[in-house]
Amino acid sequence: MKHFFVAVMSLIAFSSFSSLKTEKSIEPTVNKTDSIVVKQLFNSALSNGQSYQWLDYLSNNIGGRLSGSPEAQQAVEWGEKLMNGLGFDKVWLQPVMVPHWVRGEKEEAYFTINKVKYSVAICALGGSIATPKNGVSGQVIEVQSLAEAEALGEKLRGKIVFFNRAFEDTPIETFKSYGGCVDQRGGGAKVTGKFGVLGVIVRSMTHSIDNFPHTGAMGYGDIPENEKVPAAAISTMAANLLSEKLKENPSLKFYFKQSCETLPDAPSFNVIGEITGSEFPNEFITVGGHLDSWDLGDGAHDDGAGIVQSMEVLRLFKLNGIKPKHTIRAVLFMNEENGLRGGRKYAEEAKANNEIHIAALESDAGGFTPRGFSIDANGKNLELIKSWKSLLAPYGLHDIDAGHTGSDIGPLKSETITLVGYRPDSQRYFDYHHASTDTFDKVNKRELELGAASMASLVYLLDNYL
Amino acid sequence: MKHFFVAVMSLIAFSSFSSLKTEKSIEPTVNKTDSIVVKQLFNSALSNGQSYQWLDYLSNNIGGRLSGSPEAQQAVEWGEKLMNGLGFDKVWLQPVMVPHWVRGEKEEAYFTINKVKYSVAICALGGSIATPKNGVSGQVIEVQSLAEAEALGEKLRGKIVFFNRAFEDTPIETFKSYGGCVDQRGGGAKVTGKFGVLGVIVRSMTHSIDNFPHTGAMGYGDIPENEKVPAAAISTMAANLLSEKLKENPSLKFYFKQSCETLPDAPSFNVIGEITGSEFPNEFITVGGHLDSWDLGDGAHDDGAGIVQSMEVLRLFKLNGIKPKHTIRAVLFMNEENGLRGGRKYAEEAKANNEIHIAALESDAGGFTPRGFSIDANGKNLELIKSWKSLLAPYGLHDIDAGHTGSDIGPLKSETITLVGYRPDSQRYFDYHHASTDTFDKVNKRELELGAASMASLVYLLDNYL
Repeated sequence: MKHFFVAVMSLIAFSSFSSLKTEKSIEPTVNKTDSIVVKQLFNSALSNGQSYQWLDYLSNNIGGRLSGSPEAQQAVEWGEKLMNGLGFDKVWLQPVMVPHWVRGEKEEAYFTINKVKYSVAICALGGSIATPKNGVSGQVIEVQSLAEAEALGEKLRGKIVFFNRAFEDTPIETFKSYGGCVDQRGGGAKVTGKFGVLGVIVRSMTHSIDNFPHTGAMGYGDIPENEKVPAAAISTMAANLLSEKLKENPSLKFYFKQSCETLPDAPSFNVIGEITGSEFPNEFITVGGHLDSWDLGDGAHDDGAGIVQSMEVLRLFKLNGIKPKHTIRAVLFMNEENGLRGGRKYAEEAKANNEIHIAALESDAGGFTPRGFSIDANGKNLELIKSWKSLLAPYGLHDIDAGHTGSDIGPLKSETITLVGYRPDSQRYFDYHHASTDTFDKVNKRELELGAASMASLVYLLDNYL
Repeated sequence: MKHFFVAVMSLIAFSSFSSLKTEKSIEPTVNKTDSIVVKQLFNSALSNGQSYQWLDYLSNNIGGRLSGSPEAQQAVEWGEKLMNGLGFDKVWLQPVMVPHWVRGEKEEAYFTINKVKYSVAICALGGSIATPKNGVSGQVIEVQSLAEAEALGEKLRGKIVFFNRAFEDTPIETFKSYGGCVDQRGGGAKVTGKFGVLGVIVRSMTHSIDNFPHTGAMGYGDIPENEKVPAAAISTMAANLLSEKLKENPSLKFYFKQSCETLPDAPSFNVIGEITGSEFPNEFITVGGHLDSWDLGDGAHDDGAGIVQSMEVLRLFKLNGIKPKHTIRAVLFMNEENGLRGGRKYAEEAKANNEIHIAALESDAGGFTPRGFSIDANGKNLELIKSWKSLLAPYGLHDIDAGHTGSDIGPLKSETITLVGYRPDSQRYFDYHHASTDTFDKVNKRELELGAASMASLVYLLDNYL
C-alpha cells in the first residue's frame, strides 16, 4: 500500500492531528471528563512510554528468570530499584519461599530406524525428574489423551508414552486450544507412572509447526516416589515426524536424556510499589503480572510485558497528575509459572493485614495489541465495567465480558472483589509461549504501550466508579 | 501464563470443542444460516487453509517483485498457474503496460564531522533519478514540512534538503500517522527542485526507530527535467543521528550516491480468476490485492498477504460448496506501488465491457489480525454492512464504518458500487512497510488465515444481501 490514498488520508490526518499536538503537555486531569483522561493516558503511553525500554533491559540484560535462579533475584532487585526511582509512595519486597527446579544440561533426544538416527528437539518439563544418567531408551506408544493412556494400562510397561493431541485450529481465542491440550503436559507423567513407563514425551503446546520445544509445568500429584518418571516436551515438528515414522515402524526406539532436578525451596520476593489513595488509603486496587519466567527464552511476553505494563500504569498516573482515591499497587508476583507461591503469599498477607482489596487487574497474556478485558465480579460490577465499552472501543477494547482473569490475582478472590484480566490479541501468544523464542524482538513497542494505557484506563475507571 | 487456570479453561474448551470437531467435514451451506456459514468459512480457513503456504512460495521463491521486473513476471505466471490449479471457472491475464524503474547498485551515504565518517542507511525512493556517478555532497538543511522548505526558497540552493518530520505517536490507527508524513516522500523533490538543491533525503515512513530505510513512491509532477533532483529515504535511526549532529555542526557535509533509473514502460498483467455467478453471472464482486511489491523485502505483508487472501476467498467458497449468485473475481492487480496502472486498466476494461460491478473488496494493509472493514458506499449499503456487526464481532471484526477502501479498486468507483477495505490491526504494519524487513517470517499463519476468512465472510454476505 502506498501513497495513492494519501491525499485523502492527509486531509483526515492533518485536521485531527492539529488538536493532538497540544495534548503532549500533560496537566492534572481529575476534573476532566473520563474520555479526555483515557485519551490522555493513551497519548502519554504512546508518546512518552517507558515500558518498552524497561522490557528491553529485563529481557536482554537479565533474561529468563525461573523461580529460585540468580536471574530471578536480579529481577527482584531491578524491579525494586526501578519503582523506587519512579518515586512511588512506598516500595517494598514481600518475602516468599519458592520451588527451585533447575534444568541442568541441555537435553538430548533421538530415535533410530534401521540405524538411521533422527535427532529431535526436546526439553524437560518444569518439575520433572531427570532420566537415569545415560538416558532412557524404549519403544514408543503414541496416545491422544490421558484417558487413552489410562485405558492402555499395563500395555505401557517399559515403554515411552508420547502424548500427541494437537491444538485445535478452529477456536478464534487460542487460549481455548491451549486449555484443550495442556492436561497432557500437566498430568501425562502422573497418570502413566503407575504402569512402569520409562518416561513421557508431550507435544509442545503451540499451534505453530516449528522446531522449538515449549516447556511448562508438570506435576506428579501425590504418587509414590518410585512411580515418578521423567517428562519432556517435544517440538511440534519433531512430534509430527515421530508420529509419521511410528506408523511405518511401530517398534522404533526413542532415546532421551535430561538432568533436571528439584532443589530445596529458595527464598524470593514479590516486588510491590504503591501510590497511596487520597480518599481511601486502606482500600486497594492491585495491578500486576508475574516477574518469574521460564528459562528457555527471555520471558519477554510471558510475563515481562505484564510487569512493565503494571509499573507503567502507576507511572502514567503520576505523569498525568491523577491522584487515585484508593491505593493503587503494582505487584510483580514471583513464581506464577511453577508454584503460584507469590500470588498465594500476597493474598495471605492481605488477609492477615485486614486489607480491603476492591479490585485486581492482571496482565499475563502477552504484550500484544489490545482486545479487551475479562471479568470475574458480581453482576453489578460486571455490568458497570461493560458499560464502559463505548469509552474503550476507540482503543480496540471491544471484548469486555465475564471470563478467566489471572492466576496471580486468583487467590484474592472474595465475595466483593472485582478481578479483571487484560486480554490482548491471542493469535501469536503460543508461537512463543514457554519457548526459546519468547524474546524481546517479538514485542512491538506500540502494542505493549497500548496495553499499558488500556490497563491504566481501566484502573482509572475502577478507582472512580467502583 | 501457565497451567493454573487450565482446569477452568479445559471445561470451557472441551464443552465447546465437542461441537467443533464435526465441523471439519465440509458440506454445501447455501441453506444454512449466515452465522453457520461464517463459522464454517473460519473453520476451514484455520484448519485447512492454503494462503500461508502460497505466501511462503511467493515470498521465498519469487521475492520482491517491482513492476517490470523478472520477479513480477514470475509472480504473474505463478498466480495464473495457481488459480488454474484451483479449478476456478475462468482464469486469465489482462495485459497492462507498467512503469519500469530499477534501483541499480546499492546506495551509499555518509556524513563527516572533523574527518570522522558516519555511514548511514539510505535507499533511493521509487521513481527518483540517480545522483551523478560520483554521488552528491553538500551541506544539509533540515526541515519539517514541504511548506517550510518552500519558505526557505533560495536558501536551499546547493544544499541537500532533509525532510525529517516524524510519525505522530498518538493516533491509534497508524495509517493516520503515515498520512500525516508521507507528503514529504511524495513531494519533497518536486517542491525543492526549482531552488537548485543537490538532492533530497526523507525520514523513513515508520514509527519504528531502526536502521532500515523504507522506500516508496515519489514524483516530480510536471517540473522541467533540469529541476529534477535525486531523492532517497534515510532510516529513522540515521535521521535521528543526523538531526542531532546537525545541531552541533550545522555545516557538516552529507554525501549520497544512487544509480536508479526509469526504463521504458514494460508489458505486464493483472491476473484474474473467477467463479461464475449462478443467478447473475454478469454482475461482479471483485476481491483483490496487488501482486507487485517494492524490491527491498519480499513483499510478504505488502501485499503478498492481500493476494493470497483474495485467492483463498474463492477457494473457500468452492471448498464449502458455496455457489455465489454473482460472479466472484479474485484480481491480483499489477503496479499498485508505483503507478496504479493495473487498477486503472481493470476499471477501464470493466467499463468497456459493460460489466456491472456491484462490489469490490481490497486487502492491502498487511496480513495482521482482523479488526474490521472500511466502506465507501451509499448510505443504504453502508448501513446494511454495519448491520452485520454482531455476526462478525466474534471474529474480532468490530471496526466497521465508512473510510478509505483500497487504491486498486478505487478506479471502479461509481454511484452504485460498494467498495470495501479489509482492515487488520495496523500496529506492526509500518515496522515492515516498503523495507527489507517485509518478509515471510513476519507473517503469523493464523492472523493471515483469519483475514482470508473475514474477507470470504464479507463477500458471502455481499453476494447474498447486496
